[in-house]
Amino acid sequence: MRIEINQKEFYEGIQTVSKAVSSKTTLPILSGILLKTEEDKLKVVGTDLEIGIECFIEAHIIKGGSIVLPAKYLTSIVRELPNEKIILTTEASNNTAQIKCDQAQFNIHGSPADEFPILPEIESGVRFTIKQNKFKEIIDQTKFAISKDESKPFLTGGLLIIEEGNIKLVSTDTYRLAYREDQINEKDISAEKVIIPNKTLNEIAKLLDNSEDLIEIIITENQILFKFSGVSIVSRLIEGQFPNYKQVIPNKNNTKVIVDKNELLSAAKRASLLAKKDSNIIKINLEKDKLIITSNAPEIGQAYEEVSISLVGQETEIAFNAIYLMDCLKVIDSEEVVLELLGSLSPGVIKSKSEDEYIYVIMPVRSA
Amino acid sequence: MRIEINQKEFYEGIQTVSKAVSSKTTLPILSGILLKTEEDKLKVVGTDLEIGIECFIEAHIIKGGSIVLPAKYLTSIVRELPNEKIILTTEASNNTAQIKCDQAQFNIHGSPADEFPILPEIESGVRFTIKQNKFKEIIDQTKFAISKDESKPFLTGGLLIIEEGNIKLVSTDTYRLAYREDQINEKDISAEKVIIPNKTLNEIAKLLDNSEDLIEIIITENQILFKFSGVSIVSRLIEGQFPNYKQVIPNKNNTKVIVDKNELLSAAKRASLLAKKDSNIIKINLEKDKLIITSNAPEIGQAYEEVSISLVGQETEIAFNAIYLMDCLKVIDSEEVVLELLGSLSPGVIKSKSEDEYIYVIMPVRSA
Repeated sequence: MRIEINQKEFYEGIQTVSKAVSSKTTLPILSGILLKTEEDKLKVVGTDLEIGIECFIEAHIIKGGSIVLPAKYLTSIVRELPNEKIILTTEASNNTAQIKCDQAQFNIHGSPADEFPILPEIESGVRFTIKQNKFKEIIDQTKFAISKDESKPFLTGGLLIIEEGNIKLVSTDTYRLAYREDQINEKDISAEKVIIPNKTLNEIAKLLDNSEDLIEIIITENQILFKFSGVSIVSRLIEGQFPNYKQVIPNKNNTKVIVDKNELLSAAKRASLLAKKDSNIIKINLEKDKLIITSNAPEIGQAYEEVSISLVGQETEIAFNAIYLMDCLKVIDSEEVVLELLGSLSPGVIKSKSEDEYIYVIMPVRSA
Repeated sequence: MRIEINQKEFYEGIQTVSKAVSSKTTLPILSGILLKTEEDKLKVVGTDLEIGIECFIEAHIIKGGSIVLPAKYLTSIVRELPNEKIILTTEASNNTAQIKCDQAQFNIHGSPADEFPILPEIESGVRFTIKQNKFKEIIDQTKFAISKDESKPFLTGGLLIIEEGNIKLVSTDTYRLAYREDQINEKDISAEKVIIPNKTLNEIAKLLDNSEDLIEIIITENQILFKFSGVSIVSRLIEGQFPNYKQVIPNKNNTKVIVDKNELLSAAKRASLLAKKDSNIIKINLEKDKLIITSNAPEIGQAYEEVSISLVGQETEIAFNAIYLMDCLKVIDSEEVVLELLGSLSPGVIKSKSEDEYIYVIMPVRSA
């Protein structure tokens, strides 16, 4: 291979695909990035066999070819090069690459490209599109509630549902559940329900920008493909039965409160400073026109916070893990939120007051 | 005590003094901050007995008093409060404090102020002043070469010398030595030579701003006092004999090179990526008009870098630990630097090309 490629574009491409490269892999070839010329572009690929990221970069191809180079060294070298033309030459006979740029020259040992796993080709399946900024928001509003508990693999991902022109993303760690619904561009496609791994959702959310450009998503039986901004991400899906989230979302309440999101978040944040270290419990008392948060860390002290509200229904009280409450307030984009309670021992519901359909269910804790 | 104090000013004050508070202390009172009314101000003090920081904050004193409050909780609570008036009330009978701000109220358990150590009062000694930005630069250009080796305490600080209207700060970890000289405002004061602990220099460099306001420094036999921007820092000095730095700085050379600092830094940074993991060795070859850096990490590959130079004297070669070379290039403020060499096995010297007197001595390593 012999190509000329711009440093900035090359760096962006290998940085993108290196997100799929695992630092701790038992298969040495997976710590590398595949570089392969295809027509007038350089294809770069990284994978840990769970997720694969592929990216095409504009390049002047003098002689075609392919090689696998160590991701860590390749990215750190290209990052430090000046923003000029890089000449990349590989020698198939001994699997080495030469990177030349300005007065700098690097020789790196690589591996033959045919040892690198081939990403599955996904062409048919349930296909739909949605704006990048919208899909990013959907992920950001739900991913934090995904379970880290590997003993229940079906909770370690987000449940993606496509039905009747709508997209739904649901996540739960059994202490709280986050649900977000929106529209997709395609109205007449088959219904689908799959569980996407946490890592995949996280990496996609990082790579998506805030533009209204479309992301294309294709779902097959075992895999899901995301295509946007010249990047393709293919990920395995998680097998298993996701819990029936509809049963978890309460459909009645005795108390309904409208409260300023930022005021509630600030008050919860401060009160959490004096919550007990292990449980993080804060108590919430709902009165006619105010919400009172209290906490008590016996050795340290107590906190008392008041926030103005408008309340419909019964006055009540409930206790939450402060972190679970703050997690959702940080990602809701409306100025006000709605808090719905049935009683002190029933799950609380927090909803966005914007047009977006966002529901967050949070289990109460018994306060001492 | 009962006072009214502005949130922002209160937070800045306790944040400043909390830099002296050690998180791991065997004396519980030292994890706290002393708050004490003095005339129309609130004095706040933090100390780990090695270094003490004291700061005065404007406050409306309704009733005088004093208390010690846990630094960690006090700073995190005050940080999260809105930028409004805080009412701080303490109850001497049970050593508690109440912090009220807007709709938030905190009760915190504290300790009696008389259990808090008293910082030494320093009034007489060798006294001089220098601009804050200048003193910050002097520290930043030398502190990174201070030894971390606790078995040689006299190397774990910077040597401060005052003589003939000049200030000198010297540091060494025996692998390299950094020397910076400048003028002070006072010409006729007694000569002094003391070793200031690394932590003290680091905290001062963080607190100094880039203004031309003066910092006042008073040196006594065992202590040093720094006063600037309403903050007083008193620190113990390190006992022992600092090595004779004049003997370490070479006074002759066979090769003198002028090189662009940023080009040399970039080239060294890239070459270091392929230096051997443990030794970080890069080789430097000096030819008539170019400086060549090479490195070799046997399993990974090789790097080759060229930088244009002007050379006077003999062509030669030398090998350095790349990190030691980069450390000094990062803090020199001139566009070009001067590299002086006597031979491959003698210490190299790097000097700033600006008017500031800066000398950096770096020991060569034997390259394989």
